[in-house]
Amino acid sequence: MRTQVGIIGAGPAGLMLSHLLHLQGIDSIILENRSREEIEGTIRAGVLEQGSVDLMNAAGVGERMMREGHCHHGIELRFNRQGHRINMHELTEGKNVTVYPQHEVIKDLVAARLDSAGEIYFGVDDVSLHGLDTELPKIQFRPHKGAELQEILCDYIAGCDGFHGPSRPNIPVNIRVDYQKKYPFGWLGILAEAPPSAPELVYANHDRGFALLSTRSPEIQRLYLQVDITDNIANWSDDRIWTELHARLETHDGFNLIEGPIIQKSILSMRSFVCDPMQYGRLFLAGDAAHIVPPTGAKGLNLAFADVQVLARGLQQLYTSGKNDLLAQYSHTALRRVWKAERFSSYMTSMLHRHAEHTPFERGIQLAELEYVTTSRVAAASLAENYVGLPMAL
Amino acid sequence: MRTQVGIIGAGPAGLMLSHLLHLQGIDSIILENRSREEIEGTIRAGVLEQGSVDLMNAAGVGERMMREGHCHHGIELRFNRQGHRINMHELTEGKNVTVYPQHEVIKDLVAARLDSAGEIYFGVDDVSLHGLDTELPKIQFRPHKGAELQEILCDYIAGCDGFHGPSRPNIPVNIRVDYQKKYPFGWLGILAEAPPSAPELVYANHDRGFALLSTRSPEIQRLYLQVDITDNIANWSDDRIWTELHARLETHDGFNLIEGPIIQKSILSMRSFVCDPMQYGRLFLAGDAAHIVPPTGAKGLNLAFADVQVLARGLQQLYTSGKNDLLAQYSHTALRRVWKAERFSSYMTSMLHRHAEHTPFERGIQLAELEYVTTSRVAAASLAENYVGLPMAL
Repeated sequence: MRTQVGIIGAGPAGLMLSHLLHLQGIDSIILENRSREEIEGTIRAGVLEQGSVDLMNAAGVGERMMREGHCHHGIELRFNRQGHRINMHELTEGKNVTVYPQHEVIKDLVAARLDSAGEIYFGVDDVSLHGLDTELPKIQFRPHKGAELQEILCDYIAGCDGFHGPSRPNIPVNIRVDYQKKYPFGWLGILAEAPPSAPELVYANHDRGFALLSTRSPEIQRLYLQVDITDNIANWSDDRIWTELHARLETHDGFNLIEGPIIQKSILSMRSFVCDPMQYGRLFLAGDAAHIVPPTGAKGLNLAFADVQVLARGLQQLYTSGKNDLLAQYSHTALRRVWKAERFSSYMTSMLHRHAEHTPFERGIQLAELEYVTTSRVAAASLAENYVGLPMAL
Repeated sequence: MRTQVGIIGAGPAGLMLSHLLHLQGIDSIILENRSREEIEGTIRAGVLEQGSVDLMNAAGVGERMMREGHCHHGIELRFNRQGHRINMHELTEGKNVTVYPQHEVIKDLVAARLDSAGEIYFGVDDVSLHGLDTELPKIQFRPHKGAELQEILCDYIAGCDGFHGPSRPNIPVNIRVDYQKKYPFGWLGILAEAPPSAPELVYANHDRGFALLSTRSPEIQRLYLQVDITDNIANWSDDRIWTELHARLETHDGFNLIEGPIIQKSILSMRSFVCDPMQYGRLFLAGDAAHIVPPTGAKGLNLAFADVQVLARGLQQLYTSGKNDLLAQYSHTALRRVWKAERFSSYMTSMLHRHAEHTPFERGIQLAELEYVTTSRVAAASLAENYVGLPMAL
């Protein structure tokens, strides 16, 4: 097989890249080791920055998102049993976020690719990359477990295969720096059959730990609790989860948390990670393959979209004009934005969680940070501009 | 002896409080264990917030400050060998800071007190506080070492006697919480006979550590280097100091650091500290007696002035109307602002110093923070509004 851009991974990065390239007349093939049912059925959160919403619409795949997604003009920060709204819409001169789950984004992108006869191989096995420093790199894979090895010859390869995918290890360790932080806490996430308890997301810093009241649909709610990373979901009965959510989300004026049957629960670990550079020879990493953020800043999907916008533009320049300066700068351009999102995710994580190692002074500083950001207009505007998404640096 | 307000300590807090009370017709006596020559002659840095400048002027003691102080409209943050100006004047709609050393402030306040026949006892010894939970507390002291004990009967006592003074320990430990952080680094500060190398303060984050280019006068400059707190000034020859300053303050385009004879050098330790509450019975703490900030945010003197403004207003209310609600709220009101200044000082310290314990990821986040604050208008405005001083919360 032969294609211009071989794409490993059918997550938001790989699918959006393939779609953007298609719109520019550049062909690609996507390889994905999971099944279509699995990637479309794994329920994932999704807070789309204004720029991601704009990209979905500009790429012609935003129709269902605009109909079914929920536009949020603000978020609430809750501490000392009191809520403080950050009015993002007003603080950023009209920008918002749209809550639209990641697996719905994936469904829309898969449908768009298949409608345009895009090639996606689901359920592949044994993916490996070869000849990245040549002019004709190739991807080897088995179309399914046990099948014969096949090859795709490519001009370029995009590694959109997530944190554990096969692409990143192909960047030699002597030119690669991995920046990393693992957190001692994780999020216990639940899906509950209940209507929304609040119109917008609530981020709560409580003495007992962080809690997040998110939202999925009018019937199903998503809620999270900070737990120790060594904790086990078996320790958390539904009763205990609700008791803890009530305690952490309480307010002076009596917040009404609406309960419902818990239909899913699990503990997510949290990590910050940056790979520098994000390119090597004819390989370009995008999304989680290159960087991970803790979910507190809601940046994961948005960073993936930002990466592939930069990458698609570089490839477009190359195929239309033969110039490769944008492509050569891909890693540099993408990382500038990546580090700012890492900073914001780290800031939100630090400010909102309880840290076992904190001294009383550090806890005092954390509460002062919350007090400051909810009373200073420019500080709130700084949080807001990051939450709705910093400008693309294309 | 008998006075309305007994004040322990003739630093900026005690002197300004005495002066403000005098302007309101309330009499006070100040006790100071150092000599007048010592407090006026100990060279100290001084960056006055807009609100502190306004207070000096409103209190009629700003004449020399306006003539000899230097109004600064911005500061520079330097990292990756490049300078980035924070235009405070523009970002805060016209606010500035004034560089006017603390010992000059003290001279002006001492002169003002003595001109109005204010009572200041210098060189006293053995100061102790008594009967703070009665209606007539008293201060015992010896006018000089070895002299007979004397007493001042007071309506109220203001503890303006710094971190190591005798006042704070009188707040019983069972109602007092001390919040504290000690830093593993200190500042090696020098005074050099040289003209200014830059028109405004330069805060540099360099791989080798923090450096600060401050200013004193057209002939004498103040410069600082981050050093390990266990380091000894004997390890630092003048040559080594200049070499290190040149290295840390370097820029791509060739910064010209002007050298000169070093006339003073010493290593300062750094601490964050907050005492809560700042009042007990008829005792009120103000300034360093109640809280310490690392010098990175230039907040120490300004916090002292902010405290005594709140305290003077509470005493004025009491003596004119008999109501004590402002005075009863003194600690609460003052601490709200104190914690915000502690937060800012902690933020500046964290962002600008090299931290031995930092992982490469944490160093990356630090550089991303610098990159962000120097490229986002609202983030720069947040830094600026803190640097020039948050509004008084009287």
